[in-house]
Amino acid sequence: MNKAVFYHAGCPVCVNAEERITEIVDRSRYDVEIVHLGENKGRIAEAEAAGVKSVPALVLNSDVLHINHGASMAEVKG
Amino acid sequence: MNKAVFYHAGCPVCVNAEERITEIVDRSRYDVEIVHLGENKGRIAEAEAAGVKSVPALVLNSDVLHINHGASMAEVKG
Repeated sequence: MNKAVFYHAGCPVCVNAEERITEIVDRSRYDVEIVHLGENKGRIAEAEAAGVKSVPALVLNSDVLHINHGASMAEVKG
Repeated sequence: MNKAVFYHAGCPVCVNAEERITEIVDRSRYDVEIVHLGENKGRIAEAEAAGVKSVPALVLNSDVLHINHGASMAEVKG
């Protein structure tokens, strides 16, 4: 099973992107973990190390797909 | 079958996003059409009407997911 991580911060743009992404992904091949960085600030470093510059973002192996723009990582850190 | 349209302009950012999106989408539920706007300038108006501001972008029904940033629509029109 492939792993994908969707990082977001609860913003409207994030919620919309999350709905669309979880809707289109082939769940028989991908396990999608949803991480709310506002509620899991301990995982911000991991997201940044993966290359996440803004949320919402989907990390697939070594690639980061920034999907629309909800908030920058600086804003997420608050 | 649901319809999704992936608009791009052949740029490296576009190619990478196309690979990831076509990889994760559940093809048993989604029919993904790939449209190269540089080669199909006649479809630029349709993309703009759907809300596409930059490429690569994935249009799902009434939602537009701008994925990373390859080029603005102004650049695509060139």
